[in-house]
Order: sequence, then C-alpha cells, then structure tokens
Amino acid sequence: MPRYALKIEYDGAPFAGWQAQADQPSVQQSVEEALARLDPGFASGGRIAAAGRTDAGVHATGQVAHADMQRDWDPFRLGEALNFHLKPAPVAILAVARVDDQFHARFSAMERRYLFRLVARRAPLTHLRGQVWQVLNPLDVDSMRAGAAHLLGQHDFTTFRSSICQAQSPVKTMDEITIDSVPVPHGHEYRFYLRARSFLHNQVRSIVGTLERVGAGSWHPDRVRDALQACERSACGPVCPPQGLYLSGVGYPQDPFA
Amino acid sequence: MPRYALKIEYDGAPFAGWQAQADQPSVQQSVEEALARLDPGFASGGRIAAAGRTDAGVHATGQVAHADMQRDWDPFRLGEALNFHLKPAPVAILAVARVDDQFHARFSAMERRYLFRLVARRAPLTHLRGQVWQVLNPLDVDSMRAGAAHLLGQHDFTTFRSSICQAQSPVKTMDEITIDSVPVPHGHEYRFYLRARSFLHNQVRSIVGTLERVGAGSWHPDRVRDALQACERSACGPVCPPQGLYLSGVGYPQDPFA
Repeated sequence: MPRYALKIEYDGAPFAGWQAQADQPSVQQSVEEALARLDPGFASGGRIAAAGRTDAGVHATGQVAHADMQRDWDPFRLGEALNFHLKPAPVAILAVARVDDQFHARFSAMERRYLFRLVARRAPLTHLRGQVWQVLNPLDVDSMRAGAAHLLGQHDFTTFRSSICQAQSPVKTMDEITIDSVPVPHGHEYRFYLRARSFLHNQVRSIVGTLERVGAGSWHPDRVRDALQACERSACGPVCPPQGLYLSGVGYPQDPFA
Repeated sequence: MPRYALKIEYDGAPFAGWQAQADQPSVQQSVEEALARLDPGFASGGRIAAAGRTDAGVHATGQVAHADMQRDWDPFRLGEALNFHLKPAPVAILAVARVDDQFHARFSAMERRYLFRLVARRAPLTHLRGQVWQVLNPLDVDSMRAGAAHLLGQHDFTTFRSSICQAQSPVKTMDEITIDSVPVPHGHEYRFYLRARSFLHNQVRSIVGTLERVGAGSWHPDRVRDALQACERSACGPVCPPQGLYLSGVGYPQDPFA
C-alpha cells in the first residue's frame, strides 16, 4: 500500500475539529470522504492520521496527514482529485508527496508551528471575522514579549494545559514565541508565532490568553513566570477563543514536500 | 441639521451593492436602518450619500458617506451606537466626524482609491474565499506593469467601461496603477492599487481583467494600448469578478477624519 503525505489548509469554523466524531462535521472526515471517492481502501473505512488534532474552530495552513492508498497515484493528480471532491468544504490539499512506510504524520513530526492572530480595534471586524480574536484596546508588545520570555525552554506547563489534556507528561520545550505587530485599518494586529516539538491541549490558547492580559496591563510580565512555577491550572490567565489559531506548519527530519 | 461623515468598511458578499434597492439587501440600507434606530430624521426616511456606489459583491475598507442628523451627537458615541445596531451585518463604522454643511461625501471627493486582490494558485482557497479573485497559474508582473503603463493619464476609457455606465463623459484621468506581488502559501497574490478622481462603471474590473490576460501571456502588453485607442467596449479583456475589489479610500480637500 503506497503511503502519501498530504499538506492541508482549512478554515476551522464549520468543523468540530480535526478529529472524526460521530454526528459532528470534522476535517478528518471530509478528507476521508474525498479519499473514499478515489480509493477502495477508504471506501471500506480507511483512516488518516494527522500531525495535530486541532480543536473546534481552529484553522490550519500547514496541517500534515498521511494516507495509505491501495492504488498508485501521481501525487499531483491525487491532490487535484482530492480538491475536486472536497468542494465546497473550506478544506484544500496544498501538496501531496509519496513517502515511505516509515513516515508517520504524527509520530515522525519533530516540530509544530502555530500562529495566533489577535486584532485590537473598537469597530467590529468584517473581512477578518472568524479568522482572528478581537479585543477592543491596543496591547503593549514589549510587555507581552517580556512575559513570553519566561516560557521559553523546557518547563512543566501544567498551568497552561487543559484539565482534560491526555498527554502523559506536562513537561514540554518551547523553542520560540515571537510576537509581531502590524497595522490594520483603525487598529493593530498582533501575531504570535509559537514553535515546539509538541504542544499540550489548549497550550497555545492558554499562553496567548495569558499574554493578552499582560499586554493589556492587567498582569505584570513577571506574573507569567509565577503562573508557570505554580504548576496549577487555576494560575493561568483566560484561555482565548479558537478562531485566531492556525496550525501553520509541521517539521520532519526530511521535508516530504520539498 | 448637523452633518456627519462616516468611514465605512464592509464585506460585500451578502449585499446587492452599496445602493438601496427594493427587496435587495444593500449596505446603504443597513446603515440607514441603524441610523433610524438613533435619529428621528432617519426613522422618517432620511437617506445617506456615499463617495462610491460599489457593485454587488464589492468590498470596502474606506467607503465614506455623510448623514444629516436631527440630534447633536458626539462623533465617537455615534460610531459606537451605529456599530451596535449594525450587528450582525458585516458592516463597520471605522470613524465618524462632524463636518460642515458644504461637505458632500460624493461631490466633495477629489480622489477614489481601489485595491484589487488576485490570488494565483492551484489549490482552492479557504480563508480568502470570497475576498479575492482566484486564478490557477502565476502571472508575469512586469508584463502587467507594462500593460498598465498605457492606461496612466487622461484618456477616453470607453473600452474599459460597462455598456450601462451612466457617466456623461468616458474621459477620465488615471493617476496610479501599482501592481505588487506577495507570496501566499503555495501561490502568489497580486495587488492592484488604482487611484483616480473618479472611475467609470466597471472600470477597475475591466482593467484588472484585461491586465490578467497580459500577465497570463495571452495578451502582449501593447495590446492594452490598442484596446484603449479603439474606444470600443468589445476591445476590452474579460471583466473580472467583484469579490477581489475593495474601495480602499476616498480623498477630500481636507480629510474629515484627520
């Protein structure tokens, strides 16, 4: 059975998340249904595995999954055929690559990259609705950067993970938290770039929600360190909503799409 | 009656255009209905005038309209109240300014600025759906710039206006056509910035649709000059769809929002 890696982009709004669930629309199910139109292995219930199981409402611009097909496909033609059958769902196959049987979209991944988009302005959003988290007042970027600096490196992130997180260990290594500010009409957009080998459940949204409190002046940047050291979920700031979050990339020892 | 200028942003998708029409949703009607919740003059049928009467599906990030209110309003509070009543329509009041009775959103305008967003990539769009025009293959920016250069300055733009255009004269002066290219995941975005005192009906979409033919290699750049000189609608390239077009700004002798 030839194995293919798929790079996938989606708008998370209409989905209950990546993972297939009974009676709820999922990105996984959309892709599997498109595969089932093409390949007997999926018509009889084949499944795909993904690098990141994004939550309801969370987007992706660089999700990666792998699929075992019964037939040999030219990668370009497989991508085109999947995009045809995915319509009109807001899910697009950006790239397809033939990979060897050792490649596993989730277990081979060495790095996940997330982007969180936050827009501060008074007026309601129109074109960006559902694609960013909106707050009303501008934030202090330097304070947020100072707060974020406490989270870099290896730590017990119990404070910043959901109480239903199933990871065996709360210890993770945060390799990057970069925060940029770009102007938008009558407001400011803040972009948070986070990078780690793997993340805990709700970790990005817990961190960004906490840093927003710092940027708003409600929290001193050092309170982020205190919250981290508390190793207690109740020490976390508010978890921010999903619609600003994008799984933007997954790193492998060798990029299958290069 | 105190007069107010409104700077307005909207997603054109759900509207039959700016202009109020019987039995069709319009941006003008949405704003007038919000005004009617606040002011007796609009409850009894007051109207607003706008700088640009955008077509169905066309967006704005900097439309300007003016409204004569019966009551005195603090501009900031008027904007907040309008945004409250506009929900959930994708229309936002970005700024409000008190202006004198000589100010007319349409007739005082000295300049209109439009942005057209065109994305070239194979895979269907997800987050940008409805906000750009998509083509499948990359375009040659230098050729498009060479074609656009023929359109700068004062010309008879009969070729590039809709057959139902009601302007008295087809002579307009194009002050700017700038074309930028920015990368998007697995594709390219081309941004066309057009600036003139005023535009003919469908002029921007006629120009961009023609320049796309140049960028795709179907038209030599000099054919744009020939088409312009023909002064004949049939010499125009295809008119491109509305969802990539944004009225991005309006210039006045004095910026009312400064």
